Amino acid sequence: MSDVIAQIRQTVASLHGELTRYGLVAWTSGNVSARVPGQPLMVIKPSGVSYDDLNADNMIVCDLHGIVVDGEFSPSSDTAAHAYVYRAMPEVGGVVHTHSTYATAWAARGEPIACHLTAQADEFGGEIPVGPFALIGGDDIGKGIVATLSGHRSPAVLMRNHGVFTIGRDARAAVKAAVMCEDVARTAHLARVLGDPAPMDQADIDALYDRYQNVYGQTPIPPGGS
Amino acid sequence: MSDVIAQIRQTVASLHGELTRYGLVAWTSGNVSARVPGQPLMVIKPSGVSYDDLNADNMIVCDLHGIVVDGEFSPSSDTAAHAYVYRAMPEVGGVVHTHSTYATAWAARGEPIACHLTAQADEFGGEIPVGPFALIGGDDIGKGIVATLSGHRSPAVLMRNHGVFTIGRDARAAVKAAVMCEDVARTAHLARVLGDPAPMDQADIDALYDRYQNVYGQTPIPPGGS
Amino acid sequence: MSDVIAQIRQTVASLHGELTRYGLVAWTSGNVSARVPGQPLMVIKPSGVSYDDLNADNMIVCDLHGIVVDGEFSPSSDTAAHAYVYRAMPEVGGVVHTHSTYATAWAARGEPIACHLTAQADEFGGEIPVGPFALIGGDDIGKGIVATLSGHRSPAVLMRNHGVFTIGRDARAAVKAAVMCEDVARTAHLARVLGDPAPMDQADIDALYDRYQNVYGQTPIPPGGS
Amino acid sequence: MSDVIAQIRQTVASLHGELTRYGLVAWTSGNVSARVPGQPLMVIKPSGVSYDDLNADNMIVCDLHGIVVDGEFSPSSDTAAHAYVYRAMPEVGGVVHTHSTYATAWAARGEPIACHLTAQADEFGGEIPVGPFALIGGDDIGKGIVATLSGHRSPAVLMRNHGVFTIGRDARAAVKAAVMCEDVARTAHLARVLGDPAPMDQADIDALYDRYQNVYGQTPIPPGGS
Repeated sequence: MSDVIAQIRQTVASLHGELTRYGLVAWTSGNVSARVPGQPLMVIKPSGVSYDDLNADNMIVCDLHGIVVDGEFSPSSDTAAHAYVYRAMPEVGGVVHTHSTYATAWAARGEPIACHLTAQADEFGGEIPVGPFALIGGDDIGKGIVATLSGHRSPAVLMRNHGVFTIGRDARAAVKAAVMCEDVARTAHLARVLGDPAPMDQADIDALYDRYQNVYGQTPIPPGGS
Repeated sequence: MSDVIAQIRQTVASLHGELTRYGLVAWTSGNVSARVPGQPLMVIKPSGVSYDDLNADNMIVCDLHGIVVDGEFSPSSDTAAHAYVYRAMPEVGGVVHTHSTYATAWAARGEPIACHLTAQADEFGGEIPVGPFALIGGDDIGKGIVATLSGHRSPAVLMRNHGVFTIGRDARAAVKAAVMCEDVARTAHLARVLGDPAPMDQADIDALYDRYQNVYGQTPIPPGGS
Repeated sequence: MSDVIAQIRQTVASLHGELTRYGLVAWTSGNVSARVPGQPLMVIKPSGVSYDDLNADNMIVCDLHGIVVDGEFSPSSDTAAHAYVYRAMPEVGGVVHTHSTYATAWAARGEPIACHLTAQADEFGGEIPVGPFALIGGDDIGKGIVATLSGHRSPAVLMRNHGVFTIGRDARAAVKAAVMCEDVARTAHLARVLGDPAPMDQADIDALYDRYQNVYGQTPIPPGGS
Repeated sequence: MSDVIAQIRQTVASLHGELTRYGLVAWTSGNVSARVPGQPLMVIKPSGVSYDDLNADNMIVCDLHGIVVDGEFSPSSDTAAHAYVYRAMPEVGGVVHTHSTYATAWAARGEPIACHLTAQADEFGGEIPVGPFALIGGDDIGKGIVATLSGHRSPAVLMRNHGVFTIGRDARAAVKAAVMCEDVARTAHLARVLGDPAPMDQADIDALYDRYQNVYGQTPIPPGGS
């Protein structure tokens, strides 16, 4: 196996540690994948393996239709959705799926998260949208993700009655979006419980998003940074 | 003691670590048991021992009326309920009891958790039901569990004013059901706080449940998987 | 120093680890003390020391008026309240104070926690009562604790606009009461957010309390048990 | 570099561990700084570096206009706000910024936290105020912090639609204020969810604040204390 794929196996395995660190997953319910740059391949979590037991060796390499190319176990049951996103969105290098609690509560109501926080403007550029209800087992979830996020600033979609999918230029960026989506969803929930959040001007949201995407992080990215 | 029982003692002791990892228990309030396959015996937590101090050696072996067969301490004060379930439901290989916070809040209101999440459809096949109020110290709790879960898809019951009991083909499956019950109870609670969750079609719930029980996990179970 | 006091210093120091484990304290805000059996002395946390740095050597020995008998630092600023309880209630061997979040939210409203949970009936025998508002710096807090808990089943009192004090036959029992008070306060809060908890019969509460206090734990207490 | 600055680098790096311990930050979203006593310099977190990777060596030394004097990476994107505070408030030795969840929910509504808890009276002397909405990238945030906190008892300000800034005589005190701000914000939120907190007399708030600031901690500060 190529050094590039070995490296991506390691990255994908260890990024699952961020899902447990931030409490985004229960049992084996979330997953991270990464595209193999320049090849029609992706690396994804095996299905049903405990987060404690994930390592570079048991990650699964699939083609972009979800067919296993290298790996001992079955890939995540969400592999078809990840694969669809990579086929449809060539700029995407990483995909994450969770049922993180607060974000999934918004998804259960089918309510997008309106933007009342500078942190949300920075990362999501405005509201976090809701995608359609879709059954697992084919391309429906992938299609719903792509239809919702194509041309949208947000790297996160709240799939109705289901949970969160996030995308990024690489797997680390998609994990960051999943962490920030839950953080914003929790704060927005709590703000709403006791009243109405103060509105933000669209011009301010635009200015924050533009700055965060284009200024923050222009310098060389430090180790562990993003 | 047989190798089989030694192995089950180890499994039951270590599965309690999942109850603390997911915050399902306070002090010594929850417990896991497993049936000894092919023998009228079960292995269960000792009463009142700190989760830090549990190990294979201090687990208690009882018969299926809760009489201690091997073990230095008293068995869990919930032993009678576990034993009743094993006597009445031969397909059950593991039982878990917790007072996990969100699920117990539904139990305190006596309100079943309606199904608005794909994760709930997968694991529970629909609503998580409420069982009767019952006093500890006899077979009443066991009878309430069995009456509620017999013929029901859900492996979890919310015992009124009390907490959660879950069942599974083995102790690990029952622990998974306890983890997922709290996860679903928390998300459903939060969704309801701000409005009404979007309804799910019964046909979709049925399709998800059927797939999860029959397709997901058909392949050989990986180490740590379920 | 006597072996007995050395042992109590160790016990009190290590029991603070349960306050952090269960998230009952922020910064240096909670404290545990124990009576020295047969002597007019108590052992208590030093004031303002990080939980990471507590050990047997920096615990403070005071008389039952809060005067330091042995110890390098000032005792907890809540020492006067602990001391008053030991003077007034000879059966009490341990006292704990926290601002644990959910219990303190009930205290902020001045609302007792009605009993809708078997776990509350077991440990508290009914409602968890509210004590008066009292300023720190004299005996007022101690008097409020004693006036509220004398003759009451509950080992916990919600001091209005302040936080929780718990008592026990020893420090470990008082810590257990503090852990269970927050656990019950959280579940009761969540149950109430979505409606009215199902009532429990007083006879059932009495039966549960009687059994828990008199049957549970009759056998020799195992290591780490209570 | 001087020993003093080396020591401050170490202190600032390690204090970030309190932000993660208390769950005040997600990903890389919060930051701590300290003034270098007697010099027009401050030490602050680098931008976008994971909390796991912070150490004395990668902290950034800036002047009080945010210009890097020593350091390999870019300073925190919030450096301008920290610097403004040090320029305008000579008594301030430490500044902390977080988006801690409950405090930020109050900030999102633009609602100050009224004082219903003795812990809030102790640390904040009354309500925790709201500061103006301000865009990042200039002195607006710093001006909003200074305008709100100058002459105010509270060391914490809830910046509208944004998050929390706290100040202190040193960085440790500012971190303590950030921890206590979230603790108080959470308890106050929960109290309000189920009704109206019991009012506190202004005279009691004043007495508590006076005692805490002037009596508590008069003795030599123990290791780790404050």
